[in-house]
Amino acid sequence: MSIITLLTDFGQNDVYVGMMKGVILKINHRANIIDLCHQVQPQNLIQAAFLLETSYSYFPQKTIHVVVVDPGVGSRRKIIAAQSSDFFFIAPDNGVLSWALAREKNLRVVAVENRGYYLPEVSATFHGRDIVAPAAAHLSLGVPLNSFGPAVEFHELKKPHPRVTKRAIRGQVIHIDRFGNLITNIHRDHLDRLSGQINIRVGSALISGLSHYYAQGRPGALVALIGSSGYLEIGRRDGRAADALGIEEKAAFSAQVEVESS
Amino acid sequence: MSIITLLTDFGQNDVYVGMMKGVILKINHRANIIDLCHQVQPQNLIQAAFLLETSYSYFPQKTIHVVVVDPGVGSRRKIIAAQSSDFFFIAPDNGVLSWALAREKNLRVVAVENRGYYLPEVSATFHGRDIVAPAAAHLSLGVPLNSFGPAVEFHELKKPHPRVTKRAIRGQVIHIDRFGNLITNIHRDHLDRLSGQINIRVGSALISGLSHYYAQGRPGALVALIGSSGYLEIGRRDGRAADALGIEEKAAFSAQVEVESS
Amino acid sequence: MSIITLLTDFGQNDVYVGMMKGVILKINHRANIIDLCHQVQPQNLIQAAFLLETSYSYFPQKTIHVVVVDPGVGSRRKIIAAQSSDFFFIAPDNGVLSWALAREKNLRVVAVENRGYYLPEVSATFHGRDIVAPAAAHLSLGVPLNSFGPAVEFHELKKPHPRVTKRAIRGQVIHIDRFGNLITNIHRDHLDRLSGQINIRVGSALISGLSHYYAQGRPGALVALIGSSGYLEIGRRDGRAADALGIEEKAAFSAQVEVESS
Repeated sequence: MSIITLLTDFGQNDVYVGMMKGVILKINHRANIIDLCHQVQPQNLIQAAFLLETSYSYFPQKTIHVVVVDPGVGSRRKIIAAQSSDFFFIAPDNGVLSWALAREKNLRVVAVENRGYYLPEVSATFHGRDIVAPAAAHLSLGVPLNSFGPAVEFHELKKPHPRVTKRAIRGQVIHIDRFGNLITNIHRDHLDRLSGQINIRVGSALISGLSHYYAQGRPGALVALIGSSGYLEIGRRDGRAADALGIEEKAAFSAQVEVESS
Repeated sequence: MSIITLLTDFGQNDVYVGMMKGVILKINHRANIIDLCHQVQPQNLIQAAFLLETSYSYFPQKTIHVVVVDPGVGSRRKIIAAQSSDFFFIAPDNGVLSWALAREKNLRVVAVENRGYYLPEVSATFHGRDIVAPAAAHLSLGVPLNSFGPAVEFHELKKPHPRVTKRAIRGQVIHIDRFGNLITNIHRDHLDRLSGQINIRVGSALISGLSHYYAQGRPGALVALIGSSGYLEIGRRDGRAADALGIEEKAAFSAQVEVESS
Repeated sequence: MSIITLLTDFGQNDVYVGMMKGVILKINHRANIIDLCHQVQPQNLIQAAFLLETSYSYFPQKTIHVVVVDPGVGSRRKIIAAQSSDFFFIAPDNGVLSWALAREKNLRVVAVENRGYYLPEVSATFHGRDIVAPAAAHLSLGVPLNSFGPAVEFHELKKPHPRVTKRAIRGQVIHIDRFGNLITNIHRDHLDRLSGQINIRVGSALISGLSHYYAQGRPGALVALIGSSGYLEIGRRDGRAADALGIEEKAAFSAQVEVESS
């Protein structure tokens, strides 16, 4: 039974995701379709790229990861399919796959151009249903990657890397999760390069040192820790760090986080 | 493996959907249950009928489509099961199935009255769990339609058709999707009857001509196009048409849309 | 095919649930993972315990119920796995399972301490992914309960029982569902002990007698009835009881409900 994951910005209020599942099952009745997340902020490629990068490798080998965040639907942007040693990926070629693909080995990428793997009728506004879903289903049936179209280069999405110096790291918030935790683009590996005790500054708050887990803080206190995906994260015991710091989801990307060795 | 889809107004905050899945799996361990949508506005039959009509046919033949939007639960309204050449359907007999059923061939409809296919104990407030789910599961095991009860006529839900004249069409908004796109009840077939260039008026806005896809507009501009379900849709590049026009989800149905040939 | 249900407070906006599914499928490719609910209010153990207690028994025998609501993640609280005559359960040992376990027979409970059933790398903040999910997957493959660790006592979550006298019951709201229905902790069995006609008082409203179903009330009227899980519930025909009574989800637990025989 092939596993196909879906990561989209379609939300839960429509039948867009449901239609994609129908299309997949019509082609491969035995596909095991798993919702990765459908609440990506509309057209937010960076958030989608981050959510994919931090989750895709937890799935079994040969899983087909489908991403549909597609501000350019209907325009000339390509749909691409990729195969690495371990996984398959399909998405619009807008960079949304690029952070995950950068971690993969023996990567081959093709443009999905063979209309034999499209739905017979292709709309101008829902390629997720009409091209991506059927291509994923055909992949899950074992159709070889190069049957879908010619090898292509794929677009890369600029990654907001933190600025790292010997004594300080300046990064930013990249995602706010349901608990109000601020997830930053500062990775454990960056922090390892700083020596001694560290201080974390975000908004008007100063946090001294790293905690291991949320419950370590005093109730209501902000804590900084390495989150479950390896990135520096600002949380708050029994509360929402985002609320305490006045950082809203829409403006998350402009929130800076500084780490200094003291 | 039988496919059973679920379309409800139960939302995501409760275990109502989960209980229905448990009931189905207890009867048919191998059922493949697919969420179509659970965020139908509470008791909004028109929205549910529309979402079903535009999505059900993307699923494989023999799929069992279950709809539970049931303002009359506990009263004397029937539960009906339907079989066409291609699909099965089960829902309260309040018209929610009628738009989909109108498209199907060789239709047979029965009242689900055989208590042998109910849960042993039937509550007065959750027939989705106690009658609809077990009936769907038994259908998926191959129980013939006429075992569930006698053939009946089913209720039809009045469809808000647009008024069509030679030079103009007056329709209305019928759904607002996650992207703030306004989906109207004006179908591609209606528009084909107008000749020449067309103008679309919605609220205080006037849109000249149809686009093919969202990204065709200037950033922030309203665009009118034929959406992926064949209906006229008002969108906005890099934004939400609903917000730009001040149309809220709850008042969507009162928003009129006029198309004139110029 | 083993069934594994997931009940969490992870919400829909993140990939936390998706990662758990990946981990499970990587260990047991054939697990059938069912979402019970992911919208438990963050860290609300009482709500999670209630949702589990009212739903778990609708699933097939041998279902593995996984709950991750885990305010103490990273601290010394245990992860426990339980087996009864009919079901399996895995969760942090914070009482979230205790209301369901109290209903089960031939109960055995162990601490999940055998690191051979953890992910190789265990984070400090996401034991749902690193310990609970892999343990559930191994259980689904038939690993015996006592392989996971030693038998332990489990924490019990204090249940907010109503105060019951001969002529009156004083309870409280324990959950507000999507329809704005107020679900109380007063069970049908409690009400059976009152004689004669009853009145229900909640906030400033007085409701005379029980209805059988919502549509029995006049439009807009409050109705009291025994809900589908056997608990007294305050609803409102064609509206939201919670809104009519000014009771918000966050303050639900402080809303008292009194039933008196008149």
